[in-house]
Amino acid sequence: MSAAPVPAPPAPIAVRAAVLEDVGGPLRVETVELDPPGPGEVRVRVAAAGVCRSDLHVLHGTLPVPLPAVLGHEGAGIVESVGPGVTRVRPGDPVVFNWVPGCGRCHYCRIGRPDLCDAAFDMQVSGTLPSGETRFRLGGRALHHFSGVSCMAEATVVPEAGVVPIPPGIPLERAALVGCAVTTGYGAVVHTAGVRPGTSVAVLGCGGVGLNVIQAARLAGAHPIIAIDVRPDKLALARRFGATHTVDAGRSEDVITPVLELTDGLGADYAFEVIGRPETIAAAYGAVRKGGTAVVVGVAAPHEEVAINAFSLPSQSKVLTGTWYGRSRPDVDIPRILALVQAGRLDLDGLVSATVPLDAVGEALEALESGRAVRTVIRMGEAGDAGEAGDAAEGK
Amino acid sequence: MSAAPVPAPPAPIAVRAAVLEDVGGPLRVETVELDPPGPGEVRVRVAAAGVCRSDLHVLHGTLPVPLPAVLGHEGAGIVESVGPGVTRVRPGDPVVFNWVPGCGRCHYCRIGRPDLCDAAFDMQVSGTLPSGETRFRLGGRALHHFSGVSCMAEATVVPEAGVVPIPPGIPLERAALVGCAVTTGYGAVVHTAGVRPGTSVAVLGCGGVGLNVIQAARLAGAHPIIAIDVRPDKLALARRFGATHTVDAGRSEDVITPVLELTDGLGADYAFEVIGRPETIAAAYGAVRKGGTAVVVGVAAPHEEVAINAFSLPSQSKVLTGTWYGRSRPDVDIPRILALVQAGRLDLDGLVSATVPLDAVGEALEALESGRAVRTVIRMGEAGDAGEAGDAAEGK
Repeated sequence: MSAAPVPAPPAPIAVRAAVLEDVGGPLRVETVELDPPGPGEVRVRVAAAGVCRSDLHVLHGTLPVPLPAVLGHEGAGIVESVGPGVTRVRPGDPVVFNWVPGCGRCHYCRIGRPDLCDAAFDMQVSGTLPSGETRFRLGGRALHHFSGVSCMAEATVVPEAGVVPIPPGIPLERAALVGCAVTTGYGAVVHTAGVRPGTSVAVLGCGGVGLNVIQAARLAGAHPIIAIDVRPDKLALARRFGATHTVDAGRSEDVITPVLELTDGLGADYAFEVIGRPETIAAAYGAVRKGGTAVVVGVAAPHEEVAINAFSLPSQSKVLTGTWYGRSRPDVDIPRILALVQAGRLDLDGLVSATVPLDAVGEALEALESGRAVRTVIRMGEAGDAGEAGDAAEGK
Repeated sequence: MSAAPVPAPPAPIAVRAAVLEDVGGPLRVETVELDPPGPGEVRVRVAAAGVCRSDLHVLHGTLPVPLPAVLGHEGAGIVESVGPGVTRVRPGDPVVFNWVPGCGRCHYCRIGRPDLCDAAFDMQVSGTLPSGETRFRLGGRALHHFSGVSCMAEATVVPEAGVVPIPPGIPLERAALVGCAVTTGYGAVVHTAGVRPGTSVAVLGCGGVGLNVIQAARLAGAHPIIAIDVRPDKLALARRFGATHTVDAGRSEDVITPVLELTDGLGADYAFEVIGRPETIAAAYGAVRKGGTAVVVGVAAPHEEVAINAFSLPSQSKVLTGTWYGRSRPDVDIPRILALVQAGRLDLDGLVSATVPLDAVGEALEALESGRAVRTVIRMGEAGDAGEAGDAAEGK
């Protein structure tokens, strides 16, 4: 038996990260200090991060989380070091971040619903890691984590359950998208709705998640698949991802009538709201047939309410529900989704509007907000290159 | 081959019936003229009718249906004569009325969801039989049918699908209740929610339908079963039907906290709203755990709306749905429920507060409204006795 190599003593490193100080921004790329991973934690060199609407919601304050914080919750990278007690990954492993890291102990984890994990939810609210601590500092001040991921940074520290090991050889700039948009859209269709072949699907909102709802519906054999958006360019993209019909909601506010017309006057078997607004949730409910299912994927601001006709609940017997992270079990589903990608059954490339460096994160959020971009991927300069730690430290 | 007996030529008969002329009442027992059954129709001597809250809603105008009408939609009787083309029943057959007589041809009937049958719904709105015609007359004026049943009468004419043949020997005064309250409550639990053993159930409203939700939850193996009502006497009855815990909503408006306390702080796996009010629908939604299911059984007035927090839909991933006639397939489920009754697994006797003659229908509705009665059964004097037609005619 040869002696194991002596690991370098864990030490803080300097990394560049997208830091939001206050609601409204600006989102600044700063050089911050990142602690080594604590017990049960993992430090990851981020290879790529997707720019998602939830980050934008944090910027606008519609998704209130503790600030200042390092943003980013969709990404992939290479494990750099692991804290005491970590057994599932080791340095060098490629991983996708899981922004709902199930604790494994609460009621929801035990019934197979880690998407509803109490501890993961609490962690999101507290802006810390499960330990209650934070690992980022800027000028001596602690920075909060965002959903336990904070991957708009050259490196980050996350709980062990916050990484899902993936097979080697998958481009991490693409795998990054599976950390949120793909898994959420796929899971809304496959896990929450359980869409079956030959059923009809309407999708309200054709952004990064909506397009994945569409391609998952195609994968599941749905027909017709009706895409609804206010932007003709997104509708064109929706067709590429599997939409059989499109409704330009910029032309008419009534999106229910077109869905009825395309479904023999019945309404769709399933509708997915992928925007997060009361009006579009109500439209999704209205667009499904009696006994059909409306799934809310979009995240509304905390105070907003949707009004549902009370008489319709029994008399039309529709199902109104929602999905959080696609009701996924990330350890199972992320590798499964990547296998579907490798088999050519799901498309990641088509989701990417642009690939930019971390310094362009502000512009990437603007492009998302304006509707110009579907998914911008931030490519970290030297991700996965151990030499970069020193570079970043120098930058500090 | 011997010649078949020559049937008596079909003719109108005189029957006593509970007629509502206008919203607000009074509900008067009148002697009305009842035509013979048309094609695909059945004339039934009513043995018994249950007094249900939907009848009360019609009286108050909160369930708007065409008036004047003969009320009653829950009952049982004996087939007296059949119209041309009727094949499923013949004179002398005991039957339970089905107030959602599936047409067998619409999309919903073809997908096995006769509870959502378009034609049955249209018939309810039009106050006619499926033919668009009516069979009751008072002083030469046509009277509308109510849900195609109108069984608060000594006899009625219904569509063939509006009767479900039942085995002989079952007391019709009890079988009557299976026409609505039992089937609706049972189906909410068994068909809509799919309650499984060991899951927790909360029931808001312990009237005739709510008690059947409770006993179906017991049958399905649920535990705990938490009954919620403002009346202590109904809570006592709820315990008899299987509730393991009770919450007196007359003492505190907050019914969610007690449910959380009884379910380890989680909320119930299932909640059933059996009242039909926006506030109690919201409470049922609030009383289920993340990922749990709230089923609306109660029928609200057509204009009422329930406000649901939009953020909660994805983040808590609860299911909000409803049930109409318990999502039943009456031809299958009514005999099955009666078999459960005969096996001692479901209780009908305990539902009955009083048995009264037709003349007492007004008092029976008042007793229901005041909360004094759970289910009053109207026993028709001479039901099933062919001699009665003449008696009734004399009365006219």
